Amino acid sequence: MEICLFAGNANVPLAQAVAERLGVGLGNALVRRFADGELHVQIRETVRGRDVYLLQPTSPPVDEHILELLFLADACRRAGASRVTAVVPYFGYARHDRRASGREPVGARLVADLFRTAGLSRVVAVDLHSAALEGFFSVPLEHLSAAPLLLEAARPWVSERSVIVAPDLGAAKLADRHARLLRLPVAVVHKTRLSGEDVSVHAITGDVRGRSPLLVDDMISTGGTIEAAVNALLSAGCAPDIAVVATHALFVGPAMIQLPALPVLRFLVTNSVAAAAACPALPIELVRLEGLLAEAIRLLHDGRSLEALLAHAAAASPPR
Amino acid sequence: MEICLFAGNANVPLAQAVAERLGVGLGNALVRRFADGELHVQIRETVRGRDVYLLQPTSPPVDEHILELLFLADACRRAGASRVTAVVPYFGYARHDRRASGREPVGARLVADLFRTAGLSRVVAVDLHSAALEGFFSVPLEHLSAAPLLLEAARPWVSERSVIVAPDLGAAKLADRHARLLRLPVAVVHKTRLSGEDVSVHAITGDVRGRSPLLVDDMISTGGTIEAAVNALLSAGCAPDIAVVATHALFVGPAMIQLPALPVLRFLVTNSVAAAAACPALPIELVRLEGLLAEAIRLLHDGRSLEALLAHAAAASPPR
Amino acid sequence: MEICLFAGNANVPLAQAVAERLGVGLGNALVRRFADGELHVQIRETVRGRDVYLLQPTSPPVDEHILELLFLADACRRAGASRVTAVVPYFGYARHDRRASGREPVGARLVADLFRTAGLSRVVAVDLHSAALEGFFSVPLEHLSAAPLLLEAARPWVSERSVIVAPDLGAAKLADRHARLLRLPVAVVHKTRLSGEDVSVHAITGDVRGRSPLLVDDMISTGGTIEAAVNALLSAGCAPDIAVVATHALFVGPAMIQLPALPVLRFLVTNSVAAAAACPALPIELVRLEGLLAEAIRLLHDGRSLEALLAHAAAASPPR
Amino acid sequence: MEICLFAGNANVPLAQAVAERLGVGLGNALVRRFADGELHVQIRETVRGRDVYLLQPTSPPVDEHILELLFLADACRRAGASRVTAVVPYFGYARHDRRASGREPVGARLVADLFRTAGLSRVVAVDLHSAALEGFFSVPLEHLSAAPLLLEAARPWVSERSVIVAPDLGAAKLADRHARLLRLPVAVVHKTRLSGEDVSVHAITGDVRGRSPLLVDDMISTGGTIEAAVNALLSAGCAPDIAVVATHALFVGPAMIQLPALPVLRFLVTNSVAAAAACPALPIELVRLEGLLAEAIRLLHDGRSLEALLAHAAAASPPR
Amino acid sequence: MEICLFAGNANVPLAQAVAERLGVGLGNALVRRFADGELHVQIRETVRGRDVYLLQPTSPPVDEHILELLFLADACRRAGASRVTAVVPYFGYARHDRRASGREPVGARLVADLFRTAGLSRVVAVDLHSAALEGFFSVPLEHLSAAPLLLEAARPWVSERSVIVAPDLGAAKLADRHARLLRLPVAVVHKTRLSGEDVSVHAITGDVRGRSPLLVDDMISTGGTIEAAVNALLSAGCAPDIAVVATHALFVGPAMIQLPALPVLRFLVTNSVAAAAACPALPIELVRLEGLLAEAIRLLHDGRSLEALLAHAAAASPPR
Amino acid sequence: MEICLFAGNANVPLAQAVAERLGVGLGNALVRRFADGELHVQIRETVRGRDVYLLQPTSPPVDEHILELLFLADACRRAGASRVTAVVPYFGYARHDRRASGREPVGARLVADLFRTAGLSRVVAVDLHSAALEGFFSVPLEHLSAAPLLLEAARPWVSERSVIVAPDLGAAKLADRHARLLRLPVAVVHKTRLSGEDVSVHAITGDVRGRSPLLVDDMISTGGTIEAAVNALLSAGCAPDIAVVATHALFVGPAMIQLPALPVLRFLVTNSVAAAAACPALPIELVRLEGLLAEAIRLLHDGRSLEALLAHAAAASPPR
Repeated sequence: MEICLFAGNANVPLAQAVAERLGVGLGNALVRRFADGELHVQIRETVRGRDVYLLQPTSPPVDEHILELLFLADACRRAGASRVTAVVPYFGYARHDRRASGREPVGARLVADLFRTAGLSRVVAVDLHSAALEGFFSVPLEHLSAAPLLLEAARPWVSERSVIVAPDLGAAKLADRHARLLRLPVAVVHKTRLSGEDVSVHAITGDVRGRSPLLVDDMISTGGTIEAAVNALLSAGCAPDIAVVATHALFVGPAMIQLPALPVLRFLVTNSVAAAAACPALPIELVRLEGLLAEAIRLLHDGRSLEALLAHAAAASPPR
Repeated sequence: MEICLFAGNANVPLAQAVAERLGVGLGNALVRRFADGELHVQIRETVRGRDVYLLQPTSPPVDEHILELLFLADACRRAGASRVTAVVPYFGYARHDRRASGREPVGARLVADLFRTAGLSRVVAVDLHSAALEGFFSVPLEHLSAAPLLLEAARPWVSERSVIVAPDLGAAKLADRHARLLRLPVAVVHKTRLSGEDVSVHAITGDVRGRSPLLVDDMISTGGTIEAAVNALLSAGCAPDIAVVATHALFVGPAMIQLPALPVLRFLVTNSVAAAAACPALPIELVRLEGLLAEAIRLLHDGRSLEALLAHAAAASPPR
Repeated sequence: MEICLFAGNANVPLAQAVAERLGVGLGNALVRRFADGELHVQIRETVRGRDVYLLQPTSPPVDEHILELLFLADACRRAGASRVTAVVPYFGYARHDRRASGREPVGARLVADLFRTAGLSRVVAVDLHSAALEGFFSVPLEHLSAAPLLLEAARPWVSERSVIVAPDLGAAKLADRHARLLRLPVAVVHKTRLSGEDVSVHAITGDVRGRSPLLVDDMISTGGTIEAAVNALLSAGCAPDIAVVATHALFVGPAMIQLPALPVLRFLVTNSVAAAAACPALPIELVRLEGLLAEAIRLLHDGRSLEALLAHAAAASPPR
Repeated sequence: MEICLFAGNANVPLAQAVAERLGVGLGNALVRRFADGELHVQIRETVRGRDVYLLQPTSPPVDEHILELLFLADACRRAGASRVTAVVPYFGYARHDRRASGREPVGARLVADLFRTAGLSRVVAVDLHSAALEGFFSVPLEHLSAAPLLLEAARPWVSERSVIVAPDLGAAKLADRHARLLRLPVAVVHKTRLSGEDVSVHAITGDVRGRSPLLVDDMISTGGTIEAAVNALLSAGCAPDIAVVATHALFVGPAMIQLPALPVLRFLVTNSVAAAAACPALPIELVRLEGLLAEAIRLLHDGRSLEALLAHAAAASPPR
Repeated sequence: MEICLFAGNANVPLAQAVAERLGVGLGNALVRRFADGELHVQIRETVRGRDVYLLQPTSPPVDEHILELLFLADACRRAGASRVTAVVPYFGYARHDRRASGREPVGARLVADLFRTAGLSRVVAVDLHSAALEGFFSVPLEHLSAAPLLLEAARPWVSERSVIVAPDLGAAKLADRHARLLRLPVAVVHKTRLSGEDVSVHAITGDVRGRSPLLVDDMISTGGTIEAAVNALLSAGCAPDIAVVATHALFVGPAMIQLPALPVLRFLVTNSVAAAAACPALPIELVRLEGLLAEAIRLLHDGRSLEALLAHAAAASPPR
Repeated sequence: MEICLFAGNANVPLAQAVAERLGVGLGNALVRRFADGELHVQIRETVRGRDVYLLQPTSPPVDEHILELLFLADACRRAGASRVTAVVPYFGYARHDRRASGREPVGARLVADLFRTAGLSRVVAVDLHSAALEGFFSVPLEHLSAAPLLLEAARPWVSERSVIVAPDLGAAKLADRHARLLRLPVAVVHKTRLSGEDVSVHAITGDVRGRSPLLVDDMISTGGTIEAAVNALLSAGCAPDIAVVATHALFVGPAMIQLPALPVLRFLVTNSVAAAAACPALPIELVRLEGLLAEAIRLLHDGRSLEALLAHAAAASPPR
């Protein structure tokens, strides 16, 4: 039986590209809003007994994209789909994975629970902010990694003079992993964030003088972290050809003002979020995820192992 | 122990007014958004062991207001609140109470389930689109009615020449109920809706010639239904002094353009939704809900019956 | 794999007719009672891995019929059925869809939850008292309509002198829908119910003088509503050839005494409830549901869309 | 805060007696049926924040009594009761504690799950058919025993010539326990049941010749087991003064015909089921449970240990 | 699609024998412990979309074996297994089926709930301590019986001089059933347990003088019950050739010291627990379960009835 | 009402010390094992209506300690405790927070779900391996920190020549936080683990030459990480006075052989795990947690904020 793939409004071009790779048409579904802003979702072809995939990054506007996904899932479940899998190339609220104060919600867990409530039976995600997010989901989660694609794209222009740089401690493990795979040295920029948008850089551990930095992170949001790291690297005497590698390019808030002003030669990002695909102001080198996602969907549908696509395979890190 | 009342961003003035009526301060909670649009909720005073009320109509933008409420609930639950009650003067997605096509979600049920997932243990609502919505909630729902307040406000200017008019069949029962309480005749405008916004009127059952119509409905959304009914009434030779009575005034889409152009003397609505309170272009007579909501919260908190405030009491309709 | 169809005791003839239409034998199941009135349910053929359908209207005696259905479902679930679908041509407790007083149960929701507790994974129903009941079920509900069958059966004897009459406001929408499809005028009898059985009629909106009334409702219970409406229509000078159309004919309490005395030419009802099939005292014209139900089961089993059979398709009403 | 005690229709006199013992009025609740047999439950006094107890043996007609209890529980839960405890002196479907064939339901577990679904948070039961039934309930169950009351009532007329007799193997442990407490010998009648009502006796292990038998069982249903045992005892030459002791007296089916014909001097039973209280045809000695139940409710309400009332205390059996 | 069978560490030889019977290889899974004693479970072949069986008796050390099973189940569920069935030849904590004191856990129910939490969708068990344990599981449980295998193995050496003996009242029904099938008389040893390990025998009902006793029980734990019964039988003048028949041979605590000292000719037990298979100090006659378990798995996998293998079929006891 | 505190067997001295601080007696509960290794849990004082705390680190043997906790919780829940809070100073399986291979369980999430299944309504933990573990729990989790106590104890012997060292990247954030609070520089040892026990060190980022290292981590398990880091530090020319600071001292496997051989002057650890308290072979400086835990329990019981004790307060890290 054929795969059914539907998309919310968050990244229709990616959904279309995935459908093309799968050799199926993108499912006919209405996902629009009434005059009062309420969602009107309608699945316009039968899904009874079908294996349904819903492609929707929960990128900004995150609440609307989450609700679209939940409504689509409920519609498919009630219409008799045999299984409904969410394919979420970018998972919003991923950083809400703890109570930073004692009386905050744990947003990522709440959203994971909403997924289950809506009847989703499996989730496919890409380069989650933290691998521990898998434990937030009661349904199985397939954690894919775009790292092999990104590293393959970076390989032509890295040299032995490059240095992998984590822009903050949270990215240190990721940087370490990339450095091992590219056989390059690693450095870490320590920062203390004073507020959500503001960043104050302290120091760099590791040697960057005269080296070409490859800043790696899972995502670029406002760009503040990148900006601070670039300044710290320049102060530390790095070579001027700086590159930034990240899976998710949100480019929100001041990003489109601040990032173009930075001396960054390349932003190597994926099309997990629609914003990244069309951004003429930045030197973006786009790695396309449709192949990865289509392959994952195909393997899931066929009941074959997708071990090779998973984040831990990319990481190749032993358990303990 | 004191009542804790917090508000999302949907109707802060109403929340403040309710707090004032209760003689408590509105709880200190941060409900803002990060640069990427993700919610940042923080309860800034202890709620441990407290009886917490969260005031939030899920009015447009409905998805954002729903998520705010869910995040607030999760924060309170994790922070040790003994009970978290949602006070939802206007419940969005109420009209999504069935699958209009075979492959739509049942939005209202899904949202009701999301409420439970977030840890809400009780919901207070006002004049729901359909009383049957109570059955969508697994947690107890207190269905209050603003009808007594609205009728009391209308009484000074209704006369024996008035006629209660339902603008469509869906409002016929409500109109019938009001007519009984005001001892007035009733009429019903039949319409066939051709689309979400468009309306085509057929006929009026009941005598309206020379009478002053009091159009009653639970809510005014785009105003299309009202506009069509007014035109039908005028064609049928009603008296020129038309009034509109509705609990919820959303005034979305074309409402603020079309409604001011209508020959309506009065819009008698409540402040369940923030939009209604400040709308200089319309002859709005505002019925304030803070008294009703504060009394309901007080009775719930004290463990006393709130029978007298419930919708069915207002309706005074025997079960069968 | 073959369809498995079992029946409780509520309407065995209908179950047999459905089985015949499906070309399968009615499943061999013991559903009897011990001397102490406790149910003894035993599935006497294997259901392991099978797609099982349980046909049981929850007609009077409603509690016993509900428990039979729940016990059958539990037996099938524990015996390894891959899916258990309840086919409930008449859903009892449908009118318990709200708390008419503040301290009543919401019976319909409770029963819907009992269905889920017993392991039912899908429900098929026919002409529910309210379409909103779908939102009471956490499992998907397929809401079929007998309206096309009823209208087809009525068409030979309606004329342009006919008028569709709703016997109360609750039936107004249904009457409106039928009127549109038959291209006939519509009238509504307003009533105020003083108690469960007693009825007091007020007035009729719409013109019935000299016209042949076709009273439409979803169900006939005690017949009180019909009796009152007939009297009101006669007083209003209607033509003497009155017909009554309803999906569900319960004929309980005083029905079999009062209804035969009424000047009604035809009762057009379905065999959703066993009582309707054998009632010589009334001029019943029976519309048989076995075709509709068999087709729905066949489509569900084959994983094909049953869009065409659903109530909203019959209604052809746009969402908003 | 005062205890709230409501009753279904299964044993109103017992409920009134319990209320009297507690010094409270029996709660005002309507539990009647509409003309179509559907339940109409209405709690007619506030229960908001109250500790509510619902007294209802699920005796025949068992399905109706179960639904009454579930509807009462749902009504109380939705009306804001802080806790709803079912007091079930006789628990129907207790013998459905396994699948006697591979494709039967496990009725007792299903009913236990229905209790939870309706919002019951605790169950009080008396002399369950099997102590293992506690494991069927996800909510806590307090398993009281009437054995001390029954033995106390029996003590005046047992002598050293008495013998405790189990009418079948299922009652052997109970008989053994009673024999130990009364310091009497024990005998067991072996039987093979050929059907639900029919019984064929094989033999007696233990010495009964010339002794006065005290037949003990948890319940008397049709009386078939008792009849067979009496006949076996007489054949074995027992003394003619036979007594029967059982907690639950259902007296269903042929019981009221067969039991009066037996040479039994005394039926020592409790008023757990309403039937037992008024049965002039049998030499019934009634042990009243109101004291036990009232004390259990009082202790539960006050948050004190009810260890002394529990079945295992009566049994005084070490765990292993 | 092929069956996937994995094993925890509790009885690998049995798992291998079952796999051999099924004609499949035992699944490649790592179930070892880290230095800190934490489990490290890894499924080393794909299970996506597979029908997985996990063979693990929860024999001593019971907690470790339970956790191994839960971890295996979680791993399979998250890895996309379509169904995960636990095959538990011996179910630990089975005797924790009630609260022997008012403030004990109901261990068996708790463990049953843990099974469900870990995602097990079906359980296969053998000769449970009590058939009522089925009601503890929310997931379906297939209760197989080794009785036919044991009786077949016993038949060569039972004679008309044999007597079936229950070592305590708890085994009386089992003894009765075996006696009927072997057409032998039955006797019951009454005991009062003073503590978990200690036993004090009272008396024997039934005639054992000069007869060869066949002691039957579901399990042998410390052997204390058997020792006491043997002594009672010898005192009562039984023939010296005593045999013991039990499904589960735990042989814990003092068993390996006390049992070899008893004048028992044969211990007829199964390999449900690994301990039983290698015990040179006792005259063990081992009945192998691999055939039974393999057949059950095969039937479950193929979606065919396994009625013939179930405990109640072995018992052939009518429901009531 | 008084606090009820019970303990499993994992750390009774700590439980007694906490009870003493609270001014209550440690609750009387039997937590022993039968001869077959099955748990026998019995709460020997009433907990009805009480606020119960169960102190149990899930330290090795981890499975047994988890089951003890679950059984205690079930016992308290069934015995009518109004709330049952687990106080888990060390949470085992914390590092199982992701699938390191695609077919592993997510152990930490599974255990969190088991907690909920057993009826625990709140968890108190100390210095979890990852703050994201909070999102694994559906019940609220209070994440306390021992960091302030540890830093206070360290302050007397740190000097401006000290350097905070993370022994691996996973501890980098923790080291950074400590460094900020102590106003000291920070260094990180990079390592690549080749297996669970084996460690291969790569390099050190940050300057340690001539400085006195303070190695910080959340836990010491086998000691392998510490050993490797110490060797790396010595090779890098650090000062010889090395200290190790960690909340949890498991000291499993080779720890008690390898650690005493290291040139470490001080092991500053807490008594979260019983092992740490009595270890004469190591220069242990023990920080006692009874004050912290008693205060947390007191605040929870009294319904007061325990904001000041939480991990994020210790961390003082802004959310973003």
